[in-house]
Amino acid sequence: MKLDILTLFPEMFKGVFESSILKKAKEKKAYDYQLVDFREYTENKHKKVDDYTYGGGAGMVLSPQPIFDAVEDLKKRANSNPRVILMCPQGEPYSQKKAEELAQEDHVILVCGHYEGFDERIRTELATDEISIGDYVLTGGELGAMVVTDSVVRLLPEVLGNEQSAQEDSFSNDLLEHPHYTRPSDFRGHQVPDVLLSGNHKKIDEWREYESLKRTYERRPDLINEDQLTAQQQKLLNEIKANKSL
Amino acid sequence: MKLDILTLFPEMFKGVFESSILKKAKEKKAYDYQLVDFREYTENKHKKVDDYTYGGGAGMVLSPQPIFDAVEDLKKRANSNPRVILMCPQGEPYSQKKAEELAQEDHVILVCGHYEGFDERIRTELATDEISIGDYVLTGGELGAMVVTDSVVRLLPEVLGNEQSAQEDSFSNDLLEHPHYTRPSDFRGHQVPDVLLSGNHKKIDEWREYESLKRTYERRPDLINEDQLTAQQQKLLNEIKANKSL
Repeated sequence: MKLDILTLFPEMFKGVFESSILKKAKEKKAYDYQLVDFREYTENKHKKVDDYTYGGGAGMVLSPQPIFDAVEDLKKRANSNPRVILMCPQGEPYSQKKAEELAQEDHVILVCGHYEGFDERIRTELATDEISIGDYVLTGGELGAMVVTDSVVRLLPEVLGNEQSAQEDSFSNDLLEHPHYTRPSDFRGHQVPDVLLSGNHKKIDEWREYESLKRTYERRPDLINEDQLTAQQQKLLNEIKANKSL
Repeated sequence: MKLDILTLFPEMFKGVFESSILKKAKEKKAYDYQLVDFREYTENKHKKVDDYTYGGGAGMVLSPQPIFDAVEDLKKRANSNPRVILMCPQGEPYSQKKAEELAQEDHVILVCGHYEGFDERIRTELATDEISIGDYVLTGGELGAMVVTDSVVRLLPEVLGNEQSAQEDSFSNDLLEHPHYTRPSDFRGHQVPDVLLSGNHKKIDEWREYESLKRTYERRPDLINEDQLTAQQQKLLNEIKANKSL
């Protein structure tokens, strides 16, 4: 995958992109990225990339010209028709499903604003997608671009050592993960549940399925789609609901 | 505000924490942060901080000892009773309301896992909060900790130049922002709406309110609480719904 990130703050990315999975993925050539400062594309003689908002108001707005020209140059140089994604609070809420969709692409351009909003014509005439990573206000789109990159790159073939890992994580199967315990079995008087020490794998699997459903039911009932539960899961969920109402 | 971040990858934070608003906020002494590698607290002679999961399974689990000891040391040194927040997919979905709540705290500790889950006793006996920044899988809690830091620090007094800015952003008032336009009024044949060039401020305000409601209704109807709309907003929303069904 080829990833281009348009930002006025390329120096923000270094620590994240040169650590851990993203570093290894680049070394394995699973993906490559380019940080593009779109200020280099502005035709404004003072190198400005923003301007006052029509109709009045305090904030500045990112001008269309530098971002259009940067995206068009990147498309031309790659000879491709990439997804062009604006990181912005008005975007589609980002999800694991969207990460899986983007992981199928050959070329993606992420566009980060900073402080300011985008001129509407960038949205309507240039972007193919708008993504919001959550309902909170950030200073810029840079952290969102890092989140999208990390979540997509770890899904690319051969990036994670153990193919299993990506499958078993929370959200991959829509239920939250069950509790995990490691040594010592008694930590300052707090014990590991007996079942996990029993060696009975059938009982352990049942306990894990029950706890995963229970945690999801208590914390994120919005993630449970009862139509999609197995008969066993439905039975466990009924038990959980009955225990709750005691 | 005093912020401690427990992580095995402190080098990931530098680019983000030394740029833009976070850099300025630190210079203005609005907050200070400390990156704490909890590997320094492990009693394991091989410096390990994780171990196999009880009951079997592929992933490793973060051991309780290093994280308990690091948090307790930080509490003792600050002589405070901070919020201890785990960044994890099982946590409460992060929101602007939570950011506003955290911005009132004097001392916050953010704990980042990486690859692995936390031993359950860290969750039940040490953490005061668990936060998830969204329903997608990331390699670690580091990006989440950066998101929380950015969204909270920009709310601290005197961090944003213009006090107004934090108020007017998307999510601060629950509706998505209206479109913004800047020069030129004609960009490659795409025009700015006439009303924004009219100088009629009453009409401009009305247009903005309508477009903000329309965008929210089309993209994020879950954000609209009709009970909380003004009479004027309710009238506009009825118009939007009527136009949609034409």
